[in-house]
Amino acid sequence: MSIDVTVQVLKENVGKKIMIKLKGDKIVKGILEKFDQHMNLILSNASEYKNNQESKLGNLLLKGDNIIIISPQE
Amino acid sequence: MSIDVTVQVLKENVGKKIMIKLKGDKIVKGILEKFDQHMNLILSNASEYKNNQESKLGNLLLKGDNIIIISPQE
Amino acid sequence: MSIDVTVQVLKENVGKKIMIKLKGDKIVKGILEKFDQHMNLILSNASEYKNNQESKLGNLLLKGDNIIIISPQE
Amino acid sequence: MSIDVTVQVLKENVGKKIMIKLKGDKIVKGILEKFDQHMNLILSNASEYKNNQESKLGNLLLKGDNIIIISPQE
Amino acid sequence: MSIDVTVQVLKENVGKKIMIKLKGDKIVKGILEKFDQHMNLILSNASEYKNNQESKLGNLLLKGDNIIIISPQE
Amino acid sequence: MSIDVTVQVLKENVGKKIMIKLKGDKIVKGILEKFDQHMNLILSNASEYKNNQESKLGNLLLKGDNIIIISPQE
Amino acid sequence: MSIDVTVQVLKENVGKKIMIKLKGDKIVKGILEKFDQHMNLILSNASEYKNNQESKLGNLLLKGDNIIIISPQE
Repeated sequence: MSIDVTVQVLKENVGKKIMIKLKGDKIVKGILEKFDQHMNLILSNASEYKNNQESKLGNLLLKGDNIIIISPQE
Repeated sequence: MSIDVTVQVLKENVGKKIMIKLKGDKIVKGILEKFDQHMNLILSNASEYKNNQESKLGNLLLKGDNIIIISPQE
Repeated sequence: MSIDVTVQVLKENVGKKIMIKLKGDKIVKGILEKFDQHMNLILSNASEYKNNQESKLGNLLLKGDNIIIISPQE
Repeated sequence: MSIDVTVQVLKENVGKKIMIKLKGDKIVKGILEKFDQHMNLILSNASEYKNNQESKLGNLLLKGDNIIIISPQE
Repeated sequence: MSIDVTVQVLKENVGKKIMIKLKGDKIVKGILEKFDQHMNLILSNASEYKNNQESKLGNLLLKGDNIIIISPQE
Repeated sequence: MSIDVTVQVLKENVGKKIMIKLKGDKIVKGILEKFDQHMNLILSNASEYKNNQESKLGNLLLKGDNIIIISPQE
Repeated sequence: MSIDVTVQVLKENVGKKIMIKLKGDKIVKGILEKFDQHMNLILSNASEYKNNQESKLGNLLLKGDNIIIISPQE
């Protein structure tokens, strides 16, 4: 068993585009700027997708407790 | 890994307009007046938006545990 | 960062009319009589509103963990 | 700020009829017999109301974590 | 204020038939055999009722965190 | 009041077939192989039932916090 | 009673394909790369299935608190 894997993944993806799946079938994509141990994320150039419709949100703070999946987008 | 990023973002936005997405597809916009470590927010000139309908709420206290996303509105 | 902002707001509104938005699209209005650190509220002259229908409840105790928004009503 | 207001209200209403609103739009009325610090209640002569239909339940134990509102019924 | 009332009620009903209302409009009835401080219950001769249809379950362990109401059935 | 009753029940049923009711009206049946104090279960020969349709899952790990009822199946 | 069974199962399946059932009827399959004590999982070659439709997600981090069932896929 290794240390908290969420920190590992988030550290590797600072400055890179990630996709986040949230509870309630929301999807957010953006550049990961910062994060903390609660999986709270600061994103830049972020957009929200619901039923394939994009709405641009710019910079945002996303609370960690709503996250289901984080996937790096290269 | 940095300190709690929510405090950083909130500190930078005191006196500025922010948009908050809440659980249950509610959106609230207003001027951030104060906040605490539980992400409880005091807003002035606040409005709530549901299905694109604005209802003015004036000053309000918003409990942090319902927040999904906070986005600065310049 | 300041001390718990919920206490500040509640203290200022004892004896005054407040509007409370609860989970499940319930709205309660009433005179704030007392409160505690869990945001549990005692209201007098309270009414509940659902789909714009008022039902008078008189005095009541409202548990803090269902509250989303508290807004002073002057 | 005062001590836990839930205890105050419950103490005053032992032996009296109270109305309890629960999550999921359930309403229970009954005589408050006992309570504890978790807001667990023992009621006698209790009835449950859903969509205005009464079903008599007699004595019951109601777990505190489902309670939204408690209102004394004189 | 008395000690935890849930223990009192459960102690008095060991060996007796109780009705339990669960989240999600499930009802379970059975003979209370054992319980613990988390309100986990062991029932014998238990049945589940949903929309007035009984399904016999025999012996079962019921987790306390889904319980809303417990009512003795004499 | 006795020790945690969940451990008692689970201990007695290692190697035996049990039925588990989960939140969201899912039912899982299987042979209980192992368990821990969080009620996490390892089952073999497991199947899931939803609306009376069986889907075979083989070996699985079931997280304890979704469990409502556990019933031994002899 | 044994030690936390989730760690046992996850350890045995590093490098192997697993199926994960999540709250909200989501299914994710992928190769388990890493995990931690919160059941947070890193998967490679992952796909999500909803209503039998596959969407490829590649590498991802899956938060443990949404997991209901983990089943090894050989």
